[in-house]
Amino acid sequence: MTEILDRAKKSGVNVRLCDKKTLDRSAEGARHQGCIGYAVDFEYAELDDIFERANAQSVPPFIVILDGIEDPHNFGSILRSCECGGVHGVVIGKNRQTPVNDTVIKVAEGAAEYVKVVRAVNINDAIREIKKRGVWVYALDMDGHDIYSEDISGATALVVGAEGKGVSRLTRELCDGVLSLPMRGKINSLNASVAAALGIYAKLECDGKKAK
Amino acid sequence: MTEILDRAKKSGVNVRLCDKKTLDRSAEGARHQGCIGYAVDFEYAELDDIFERANAQSVPPFIVILDGIEDPHNFGSILRSCECGGVHGVVIGKNRQTPVNDTVIKVAEGAAEYVKVVRAVNINDAIREIKKRGVWVYALDMDGHDIYSEDISGATALVVGAEGKGVSRLTRELCDGVLSLPMRGKINSLNASVAAALGIYAKLECDGKKAK
Repeated sequence: MTEILDRAKKSGVNVRLCDKKTLDRSAEGARHQGCIGYAVDFEYAELDDIFERANAQSVPPFIVILDGIEDPHNFGSILRSCECGGVHGVVIGKNRQTPVNDTVIKVAEGAAEYVKVVRAVNINDAIREIKKRGVWVYALDMDGHDIYSEDISGATALVVGAEGKGVSRLTRELCDGVLSLPMRGKINSLNASVAAALGIYAKLECDGKKAK
Repeated sequence: MTEILDRAKKSGVNVRLCDKKTLDRSAEGARHQGCIGYAVDFEYAELDDIFERANAQSVPPFIVILDGIEDPHNFGSILRSCECGGVHGVVIGKNRQTPVNDTVIKVAEGAAEYVKVVRAVNINDAIREIKKRGVWVYALDMDGHDIYSEDISGATALVVGAEGKGVSRLTRELCDGVLSLPMRGKINSLNASVAAALGIYAKLECDGKKAK
């Protein structure tokens, strides 16, 4: 507790002492171990922020669009991979999609602080806007072109579909193309967060080859 | 319950009726909903099985070695990616490594049935044996060569390190080389199962390029 108080002081966090009853009430039934911290809600970004970030780095924008990732572990893992893969921003919708919550932030291991996340009312409208700004949008889904054989260098957005369901029909039709990961087994179904990471790194590698 | 009894009959599974007390005792405190199924333990394979499988496909062996994956979700996800990526077998050790348990099998989404898993007493001894059989063994870890720039076609094994700790020192020294995934962000730490999948697909793509 002394360390918490010390660090709160150093960071300029206000501390209010109160009795156990008040703490219990504030914790609303959750375990509090004598201390409760208040954090501001996650701050979503705007589409402009993503393009500005790419612009500031003088590279074409690289965007990941999530079409209904309901598992917060998968979402957190995707944010982590996006951060490592140099993705400028992630676009999520409001339906059938977990928001950036405590679990997502925890699983992302710090990445949620650095990756810009835009929460669009409707991802299809967002895709139309992204295409209008000169970005090629690809669905990462079954029965498409081998992602390792396509030229996906330059301004690119990848749409990752929901666990088990893939990219929804209308969204897929909106895309400039469909890219698939090669499958060599019998099950041939990758976890959504693994598929997203493979898509991100396939794009990175394509940029790397072009630069040579 | 009727469906369970029907399907058990069709599959030739013996059914024994008993009273609730016997069920409670057999469930050892777990919830049973009136029915308990008995399954045989997961059957581990031998190193020979992995080489035989590669041989049967007339391709060089592709092996994934896990150096202490303690999270069953990561282990299950890795098995799933191995199955999709055409990995012939996975080698795990007995220390600091989750065995193939219920959670692993569930997360693997059926892949545990198809991927050969060898449980070695000591992965370093297994690595020595694998090297002796003509396979190049690479540690997938920080501060190595860019995995996308190296020729890792042909007989290859990838060693995936523990979450947070990476590949242990002795194991890393035993390997023929260290391969790294490029990192473009600030956090630069990928989930172990994501890193494994990226390694597997980097190897697949290298084989694909060579074949052209």
